[in-house]
Amino acid sequence: MSDPDLNRLSLNQATTQNWGMTATIEGCARAGIGWIGVWRDKLLELGPVETARRLRTAGVRASSLCRGGFFPAATEAERKSRIDDNRRALDEAAEIGAPVLVLVSGPPFDRDIDLARQQVEDGIRALLPDAEERGVRLAIEPLHPMFAGDRSVVVTLAQANTLASRLNSAVVGVAVDVYHVWWDPSVYVELARAGSSIVGFHVSDWLAPPPHHLLGRGVMGDGLIELRRLREAVDAAGYSGPIEVEIFNQRVWDTPPEEVLALVKERYLACC
Amino acid sequence: MSDPDLNRLSLNQATTQNWGMTATIEGCARAGIGWIGVWRDKLLELGPVETARRLRTAGVRASSLCRGGFFPAATEAERKSRIDDNRRALDEAAEIGAPVLVLVSGPPFDRDIDLARQQVEDGIRALLPDAEERGVRLAIEPLHPMFAGDRSVVVTLAQANTLASRLNSAVVGVAVDVYHVWWDPSVYVELARAGSSIVGFHVSDWLAPPPHHLLGRGVMGDGLIELRRLREAVDAAGYSGPIEVEIFNQRVWDTPPEEVLALVKERYLACC
Repeated sequence: MSDPDLNRLSLNQATTQNWGMTATIEGCARAGIGWIGVWRDKLLELGPVETARRLRTAGVRASSLCRGGFFPAATEAERKSRIDDNRRALDEAAEIGAPVLVLVSGPPFDRDIDLARQQVEDGIRALLPDAEERGVRLAIEPLHPMFAGDRSVVVTLAQANTLASRLNSAVVGVAVDVYHVWWDPSVYVELARAGSSIVGFHVSDWLAPPPHHLLGRGVMGDGLIELRRLREAVDAAGYSGPIEVEIFNQRVWDTPPEEVLALVKERYLACC
Repeated sequence: MSDPDLNRLSLNQATTQNWGMTATIEGCARAGIGWIGVWRDKLLELGPVETARRLRTAGVRASSLCRGGFFPAATEAERKSRIDDNRRALDEAAEIGAPVLVLVSGPPFDRDIDLARQQVEDGIRALLPDAEERGVRLAIEPLHPMFAGDRSVVVTLAQANTLASRLNSAVVGVAVDVYHVWWDPSVYVELARAGSSIVGFHVSDWLAPPPHHLLGRGVMGDGLIELRRLREAVDAAGYSGPIEVEIFNQRVWDTPPEEVLALVKERYLACC
């Protein structure tokens, strides 16, 4: 057992939905949180260049940009448009100094899930030169299988690992979110297999049953996930980067963000 | 492609929640549906012996009894009480002529999911002599991972197959429900691996996003599941038994059951 390092704590902006970019940067600086997991929609407030400047001034860094992906589509034109949008996301990640673009693969556009999975692979492959050029890593994030129909056809760490292996590029890695993988009987084997390809680690907790399909995540310690065991397995696999707290939950959003940050720090230290 | 056999169609009583046992037997007989997936709470109306008599008179058979399981518990006494209840379920299955008792493993009682999984294995092992004696097969049903915290720590077909292999008994098999396994990248490999240990097959559909955690299943054809592909893979694995339609959905429950049966037959033929 090892205590978590507070220097690795990152606030993913999904946790404090009511804070814009300026408020998040200032709030994290005040709270002594050195990293922010940035969302693209939040970048609209200041734009990437000014966001980058404010981050530097505040001494806070972007741990990742959320999110790219959403590759499957019925037409070639639409798939190309999605890839173009991912290129813009890579530009934004480079501009704000985020080392990682998190990829949520996207849902199937009809019943052919194998085809959708192939389109995900093709989409990521198309981005490899752009990611290499910008020095941004692409993090394939397996989502919980309950999102297979509406968010991501990549649903297990085994699948993400296999996909990353096939893409066979130094810029491709996987993002591990405990909410998405905790149930998996093969999670510890797959974390070891992922090894140095782990480029992101996200924490929250699993409330049983989930109170909402999208907004049902719990604060660390309020649910069933063996957080410390998973964090130590991720560490043992070779990951030593930021740990993003990403809690989609309406009650958390309705709480004053300063209180949320204080609770997040406390629970991170106690549970992760 | 092969059309589904109407003689294999079974109405799982979870689809027609507002019908009691008598109404279900008479309704299925009228609709020409030869099988019923029976739930234990529905048996209370007539008791197992009279239910068996009515089934024989109507020319309708029980395809399975739902459900045993729920093994993990914090104390030895509670675990023993759960196993005793499973023995009563085996008695009931034998009395109504159901060849299979479906096992929903149960959730973890704290954060130790490995321990809960071990208790599931221990619980099933304790039932083997009783199942053999009664001539009832035990069907390990992997549930969708979104139920890992509140229903079942067995969440993939791979896990169920491995568990069945370790138990190494002719009375242990697996039940495959498309709703629970459709998202799994390894489902076709695991269906082939399961082979003759498949002792139940359940159909419904996946609506995206699910409108409710428990009651969000769709009627076949209304969602994203490749039903015919899965049914043909189950057939190819060697299963030729009843196909249960099991749709937990408040709207379906609020529809007159005769209409539900007509729709179920139509969609079964069109989609399965």
